[in-house]
Amino acid sequence: MIRIVLLGTGNVAKHLFDAFSIQKDVKIDQVYGRNQKSLDFFKKEATVTTDIKKIKDADVYIIAISDDAIEKLSNELENKKGIVVHTSGSVPLTALSNKNRRGVFYPLQTFSLNKKVDFKMVPVCIEAENEGDYALLNQLASTISENVSGIDSEQRKSLHLAAVFVNNFPNHIYHITKEICDEKNVSFDLLKPLITETSEKLEELSPYDAQTGPARRNDLGTIQRHLDLLDNKAHKKIYSTLSKSIQKAYGKKL
Amino acid sequence: MIRIVLLGTGNVAKHLFDAFSIQKDVKIDQVYGRNQKSLDFFKKEATVTTDIKKIKDADVYIIAISDDAIEKLSNELENKKGIVVHTSGSVPLTALSNKNRRGVFYPLQTFSLNKKVDFKMVPVCIEAENEGDYALLNQLASTISENVSGIDSEQRKSLHLAAVFVNNFPNHIYHITKEICDEKNVSFDLLKPLITETSEKLEELSPYDAQTGPARRNDLGTIQRHLDLLDNKAHKKIYSTLSKSIQKAYGKKL
Repeated sequence: MIRIVLLGTGNVAKHLFDAFSIQKDVKIDQVYGRNQKSLDFFKKEATVTTDIKKIKDADVYIIAISDDAIEKLSNELENKKGIVVHTSGSVPLTALSNKNRRGVFYPLQTFSLNKKVDFKMVPVCIEAENEGDYALLNQLASTISENVSGIDSEQRKSLHLAAVFVNNFPNHIYHITKEICDEKNVSFDLLKPLITETSEKLEELSPYDAQTGPARRNDLGTIQRHLDLLDNKAHKKIYSTLSKSIQKAYGKKL
Repeated sequence: MIRIVLLGTGNVAKHLFDAFSIQKDVKIDQVYGRNQKSLDFFKKEATVTTDIKKIKDADVYIIAISDDAIEKLSNELENKKGIVVHTSGSVPLTALSNKNRRGVFYPLQTFSLNKKVDFKMVPVCIEAENEGDYALLNQLASTISENVSGIDSEQRKSLHLAAVFVNNFPNHIYHITKEICDEKNVSFDLLKPLITETSEKLEELSPYDAQTGPARRNDLGTIQRHLDLLDNKAHKKIYSTLSKSIQKAYGKKL
């Protein structure tokens, strides 16, 4: 049985809590949050506290809070024997106090409050400073995920950047597209099968080979007609920046 | 039984051919292509021809060729009685010869040679000039798709633009991300569950609500660290253009 104290009450903390709660080899003994209200979600199934001095002993302390606050909170855990890990993609392991055994437990996924996630498919990127701690984190991660990788802090920085590219940017592009659809009085829902297919295609084709469209064909007439259709200057800029990048990738002279 | 002549041999033609071939109420009588080799794919299950003068009589002529060539080819069909349709998102109905009954049959999906598509889920956007022709196209589209909509040429122009946004741009961003992963020696495959989740989230959340990440939080430190990590100037530009657009969408002053 691996005993856990979870520190944090946001989306990542909640999704981890849900994933661990149904495992028999793991027990979340306690959840720490800055205020009582934020702990409502957890208190039915775990002890909760707002007092950092009352943190229990555990095998693993999982800090799932905003990046900026990780270092300070880890300093408060210096007297603990368990391994202290954070869940951030962009914070190095060394941000944690070196008075603790320390590690990283980074689930590479986007978590929203009202959207369940199948944790089995979520890549969990782990890092530790010695084999014993790595083995423990590997064992812990494997209870919830079938996709556990050892990733060092340098690689994780790049992965986090890559995650922003594949999640934040396409999602924002969907938002812009919804604005365009609303303006032009067509249903955004008509595009959902295309959005699904665009991501599913990557199982069979590289994104380079999967590329289609006017920019790939260097079809300047269509590109110009699309720019003319866009009323919003910011949308025009995104269209032309990305189209130029596609044209360049496929060897067209600009 | 609706009898079809298919004109064109590219990806759209092939996917339509596959989808219609398994329907009992539809028969593709003939496929026209510019050269014999391009017709290999079709000749086992249909008559094929490279001679536009030998086109048979049919209920519907489906022109699935490159946008620029549609008008010219439609002029060659002027003596035909069936309805002539094209499959393009960006070409108006009026590009077809007005000596024919004419319409549009636009499947809103991305088609690649080596990727099967479940046509049932593909929105088919149809347009015609009278109720009888619309009913025929509706009947034809409904044999292969459960998602048929009447969309006029003006709306279709906007939909095609929207399709470029949600397909071409995210796919190119995946390509850039793969380049970054290759450079930084991390596996692009680790990102695939995140890519899938990003599109699946749209079933439950609007893209505006689903947005996460440093730009949404206006986390300038992380944005700067990401820009520093990017070696490629073009990648930096895409990162900063999209991040600024996200910051603006969530009301941050730039």
